[in-house]
Amino acid sequence: MGNIITLTTDFGLKDHYVGVMKGVMLSVNENARPVDITHCIDSHDIRAASFVIGNSYRYFPAKTVHLVVVDPGVGSERRPVAVLADGHFFVGPDNGVFSSVIRSCEDFRAREIKNLDYCLKEISSTFHGRDIFAPVAAHLSLGVPFSEIGPQIKDPEILPRDGYSVTGNEIRGTVVYTDKFGNLVTSIPTEAVGNGAGASVTVGGKRIAGISESYSSAETGEILAVGGSGGYIEISVNQGRACDVFGEEPPEVIIVEEKN
Amino acid sequence: MGNIITLTTDFGLKDHYVGVMKGVMLSVNENARPVDITHCIDSHDIRAASFVIGNSYRYFPAKTVHLVVVDPGVGSERRPVAVLADGHFFVGPDNGVFSSVIRSCEDFRAREIKNLDYCLKEISSTFHGRDIFAPVAAHLSLGVPFSEIGPQIKDPEILPRDGYSVTGNEIRGTVVYTDKFGNLVTSIPTEAVGNGAGASVTVGGKRIAGISESYSSAETGEILAVGGSGGYIEISVNQGRACDVFGEEPPEVIIVEEKN
Amino acid sequence: MGNIITLTTDFGLKDHYVGVMKGVMLSVNENARPVDITHCIDSHDIRAASFVIGNSYRYFPAKTVHLVVVDPGVGSERRPVAVLADGHFFVGPDNGVFSSVIRSCEDFRAREIKNLDYCLKEISSTFHGRDIFAPVAAHLSLGVPFSEIGPQIKDPEILPRDGYSVTGNEIRGTVVYTDKFGNLVTSIPTEAVGNGAGASVTVGGKRIAGISESYSSAETGEILAVGGSGGYIEISVNQGRACDVFGEEPPEVIIVEEKN
Repeated sequence: MGNIITLTTDFGLKDHYVGVMKGVMLSVNENARPVDITHCIDSHDIRAASFVIGNSYRYFPAKTVHLVVVDPGVGSERRPVAVLADGHFFVGPDNGVFSSVIRSCEDFRAREIKNLDYCLKEISSTFHGRDIFAPVAAHLSLGVPFSEIGPQIKDPEILPRDGYSVTGNEIRGTVVYTDKFGNLVTSIPTEAVGNGAGASVTVGGKRIAGISESYSSAETGEILAVGGSGGYIEISVNQGRACDVFGEEPPEVIIVEEKN
Repeated sequence: MGNIITLTTDFGLKDHYVGVMKGVMLSVNENARPVDITHCIDSHDIRAASFVIGNSYRYFPAKTVHLVVVDPGVGSERRPVAVLADGHFFVGPDNGVFSSVIRSCEDFRAREIKNLDYCLKEISSTFHGRDIFAPVAAHLSLGVPFSEIGPQIKDPEILPRDGYSVTGNEIRGTVVYTDKFGNLVTSIPTEAVGNGAGASVTVGGKRIAGISESYSSAETGEILAVGGSGGYIEISVNQGRACDVFGEEPPEVIIVEEKN
Repeated sequence: MGNIITLTTDFGLKDHYVGVMKGVMLSVNENARPVDITHCIDSHDIRAASFVIGNSYRYFPAKTVHLVVVDPGVGSERRPVAVLADGHFFVGPDNGVFSSVIRSCEDFRAREIKNLDYCLKEISSTFHGRDIFAPVAAHLSLGVPFSEIGPQIKDPEILPRDGYSVTGNEIRGTVVYTDKFGNLVTSIPTEAVGNGAGASVTVGGKRIAGISESYSSAETGEILAVGGSGGYIEISVNQGRACDVFGEEPPEVIIVEEKN
């Protein structure tokens, strides 16, 4: 069946912009099946868009087309791109929104969108989501060859990684994303922590309980660290909001593993 | 055609969690058609989830699969369940989210989800929506026999009902849900009120106009009681928000019918 | 394939009302494909609903059915209507929500919804979206003849236009819509401004930069005027929110073109 096109934007839910993009998709491919990832990325937060699509795309069937439009530079010199990575297609501005996808896939291919046959006839300077990205995504969902989109590019924009460092039995990372429940997703992969049972965890200078099995294994209101569903350590409060405990600045996270 | 899967969660719209569940569904059943009921249940509000799905499911075609994930106890001992009631399937945690559905359907059947063939290969302790409920829902939408899901259970969790009492010509109930317009949905069925024309209505100690035909039959800004679309008496303000008139505590609602 | 039904309402995303309408659609037409435009119109803001659907519908394939439910007068004497305009169908209350659509299409046809065969069996006085508009929309998406819906009407409600005036080389308009990014959409068509290069623009008494090519052609934080994606001049702040610069009252917008 195919025809699936996911949408990730900072357009919000108040206006008609998302609906208009879906209309364009359905006008190009009448069998298109748009699926929202989210439209509530903070305005212009390219890094959050990269995090969200990097953590989502692989749950969809291969050949899904993923549209990502967080595009503060629309109408400027930034290039529109299509990326083929891990058997999925990605369409959006070349401003770093595909950083996570590209970093996790060594043999990605990227093309600058230049073939106007796959865009709307009139291209505005303020809404490339409608005029370029939605119709290109819909054409890819129809099976248009990737090579038709435009010339290959070797240097798509990639944001610096939010990494972590290991010194002896100490791991240092940071918070890269705050979710709706107030959970703080860190840059520390759960698998980097090994056993974790006796680890000591400090967040923003505050010592918290060690690494727990699940949100509910702590007392209500207690701060805990947990191996999150995306593969990274998360800081959570059982039935509360961890983000309210720490300040606005992303806190440093330090995990010291027990010596064997 | 079938393949419809509704989604009711407290995941919000900011993150990728809902999109990821839809990706899992589409990977299991490429023809799945996810339909959102809401993702804006207050975090961990099991009672609201029960209200919402209980008031929604019957408008969908028979055999629809309804996923409900409001799951503060994820990763703890609470069971994952599938319920067959009134010709519809329901999938989610066994924590009371299906109370309204089960109460309204005497010959429901429930099974604990134990068959790992219908789950993702790796099951995290923090995101059963993705790892258990979405794939089980998608398998049910494919026509997998209900009996395959796991062993039957007789005692699914059911929350105590928000009831109402009748003494002579006086009916007492409470407010069970506040909607986006600020309308207060009560626990008093409209049919319990009989004629209602000359009834006297008191909400939180405040005498309001009697039972009206529609929101707009009162003056702008006036508080009124109306037979709501879900079959229960609602307290409303014409073009205003009834919830702002009363305090945070759900007010008691007293209807005294006219003596004949 | 067809079967597309768009939804534009002020129902918000918290409750089950939108999901219930989709369930009704799918019960009438099992192949219905509901597509959200928005459900976040401000409660009872008929003018915004008219703006949103007027700027959206033409991006969908012909024969799409567009449901619009912003309906403060539900249950009163206001008529339920279906409109055929520009090859698209529209269904909703006759209270002005279709003003933009009808104004832009001289040979529209409108019918009062009277044929109860296409409605739910029980019609409440508080939720015509579910009981009348959703099932009528779904029947139209099935190909039911438009003439079957009810008697023709010649006088659908049309709101007064937010216009603009031209005096010599001066154009005066107002702000008609504020979007999620805080952009102020004016009533002045971009094509009315001609070249625009040397135009002087005043908004709410404040002189701003002239008309720019794109949001990012001004400095970060600078106010600019730009030819918006909907065909009207917009007032924007590069990477900021123009709506926060001006007060709550929609400001007057004056564009003085350079004399040739």
